[in-house]
Amino acid sequence: MAKIILTGDRPTGRLHLGHFVGSLRRRVELQNSGEFEKIFIMIADAQALTDNADNPEKVRQNIIEVALDYLSVGLDPAQSTLFIQSQVPELCELAFYYMNLVTVQRLQRNPTVKAEIALRGFAEGAAEGDTTQRQGIPVGFFTYPISQASDITAFKATTVPVGEDQEPMIEQTREIVHKFNSVYGETLVEPEILLPDNAACMRLPGTDGKAKMSKSLNNCIYLSDTAEEVKKKVMGMYTDPDHLRVEDPGKVEGNTVFTYLDAFSRPEHFSRYLPEYSSLEELKAHYRRGGLGDVKVKRLLIAILNEMLDPIRERRRYYEARIGEVYEILREGSEKARAAAAETLEEVRAAMKINYFDDKELIAGQAEHFAQNQ
Amino acid sequence: MAKIILTGDRPTGRLHLGHFVGSLRRRVELQNSGEFEKIFIMIADAQALTDNADNPEKVRQNIIEVALDYLSVGLDPAQSTLFIQSQVPELCELAFYYMNLVTVQRLQRNPTVKAEIALRGFAEGAAEGDTTQRQGIPVGFFTYPISQASDITAFKATTVPVGEDQEPMIEQTREIVHKFNSVYGETLVEPEILLPDNAACMRLPGTDGKAKMSKSLNNCIYLSDTAEEVKKKVMGMYTDPDHLRVEDPGKVEGNTVFTYLDAFSRPEHFSRYLPEYSSLEELKAHYRRGGLGDVKVKRLLIAILNEMLDPIRERRRYYEARIGEVYEILREGSEKARAAAAETLEEVRAAMKINYFDDKELIAGQAEHFAQNQ
Repeated sequence: MAKIILTGDRPTGRLHLGHFVGSLRRRVELQNSGEFEKIFIMIADAQALTDNADNPEKVRQNIIEVALDYLSVGLDPAQSTLFIQSQVPELCELAFYYMNLVTVQRLQRNPTVKAEIALRGFAEGAAEGDTTQRQGIPVGFFTYPISQASDITAFKATTVPVGEDQEPMIEQTREIVHKFNSVYGETLVEPEILLPDNAACMRLPGTDGKAKMSKSLNNCIYLSDTAEEVKKKVMGMYTDPDHLRVEDPGKVEGNTVFTYLDAFSRPEHFSRYLPEYSSLEELKAHYRRGGLGDVKVKRLLIAILNEMLDPIRERRRYYEARIGEVYEILREGSEKARAAAAETLEEVRAAMKINYFDDKELIAGQAEHFAQNQ
Repeated sequence: MAKIILTGDRPTGRLHLGHFVGSLRRRVELQNSGEFEKIFIMIADAQALTDNADNPEKVRQNIIEVALDYLSVGLDPAQSTLFIQSQVPELCELAFYYMNLVTVQRLQRNPTVKAEIALRGFAEGAAEGDTTQRQGIPVGFFTYPISQASDITAFKATTVPVGEDQEPMIEQTREIVHKFNSVYGETLVEPEILLPDNAACMRLPGTDGKAKMSKSLNNCIYLSDTAEEVKKKVMGMYTDPDHLRVEDPGKVEGNTVFTYLDAFSRPEHFSRYLPEYSSLEELKAHYRRGGLGDVKVKRLLIAILNEMLDPIRERRRYYEARIGEVYEILREGSEKARAAAAETLEEVRAAMKINYFDDKELIAGQAEHFAQNQ
């Protein structure tokens, strides 16, 4: 069976190094591996609206940012179909029918939904006037695992490359596929999760050492940051708070600069930027025993990040001068995605036998039945 | 503003006298009143699937029954657009976006949803293996007030003729309209409920005296029943259990035969079928004081029902011989309904500003913004 990927991002801001390490870098590798017959990359505006219904402008303005980030990191529209979720209405129709196959109780047990609800401060029973909590969970947000199942199955995706935290979502999709196929006959494809394959694909902490990069915490390095911005952000980065003087011994664990070096440095970087060390291990050893200052390590990281980001910036600049062309790429991708989803939907409707007007057997059978009354 | 009606039925069985008294009779009157610019009558197969996902064949086979009943009672495709819900996919897309405007908590408070959940035996927390209760509430069923809001607003319906028990559903729609218009700008029309205007439009009891006609209770008189079937059902009808002998005084209240006479008899029926009484009041008085047997009253009801049902049966026979034509009526109606819903959806998408590719201002504005980076 042909291998097909579906993945994507919510357009609520520019993409940062956390996205790069967690998914984008891998996505480009998978694209270039030649192993996948089709790759669908979705800008999930409709999903972003489930908890941004009051602020559609934010979503609207960030679609282009995500598209520019995609193109900048090397996603190639000739190999990967880049599209906007809301431009494929077939996804809504699939979700609508899948809603009959999942119970409210099952959604309530979904750990990802639980965590996301807590993260967004949606109160199950917030008192009226309590402005510290948002009033209730939007139904669209509560049901988004079903919408995701629709996104995945519409393209007959076999492979969904996401982090471990998304496992319950894929499990939900698999359940829907299984239920649909057993009620209506074999129609949908059960997707597999493709987990990150090494430690470097871990979640990158924010520049302040907090667990996660987050726009609201202002601790992100964006793919679209200038070399100057990257320098400033790395220079202000959280290291070892007890490493006060150069000669003090320092901790590498929990030291954000070293975590970033784990994620981004390669052996050749040392000969290029810091030839007195042959490897990251040697650098870490020196830091641990004392005598190595933060600034030196940060300068290395700045050099490595900017080397990596330079071609990304260059491609971004290219596409930023061609915004109309980028929208054209998204329009064409959305059309292609729509055609694929429409094909699946047609099969779904035929399996559910709700394609009445094309169903000659139904019409002839009923005509015969009623003829007996005459 | 033009007055527009949206109403309909779930195709889970043939329509009966309860439907006729509660809605169909009124619907034909409204159609023939000339007061409404457009009338949309929906066969709600998608809604029926929300709690019949396991049994799609039931829904599929009953669409034609409901269509035949509609045409038989005098709904006229030239005046009323008869259509099948699932053939208007725009309704799914509208529902999808409305889901962001309603909270889970709000749905849980909807009294109609609560009552319907109890009626169908969906358990909030049924234990595994407990076969007396169905396992959990299907999400599609839980969210059907949102789907109804989509049905109503898609056609810009001003008027929804339903019973009092549906008032919370219309209120939910009005809330969604209000929320949508305040977030995205004036786009949708707030519908008004049109309640039955007299006591005869009450809910008709079953032939067994139970509160409601229900297929599963086998206490219905169907519009498609033959004269012989009607006779048999009326003869077996629940009356006053204490009225044992003709000479006994009888109760009229709670006596199903009299309740039906309240709903269906007109003064001229007496001169035609029972000239010794000038009115229903006179007949009731005789029954109350004793000396009037059930059979005589039942024969009157049979005559009245069959007189009323005869032209309905004749039209049904006409269309039963033309099943292909009936599907053609539904196909044309569905196309017309789809065009109307698509128009609303286009306005909705424009209001939400998710029509990116047509949004020259968006594209030009962003091109200008990024040009400053060059």
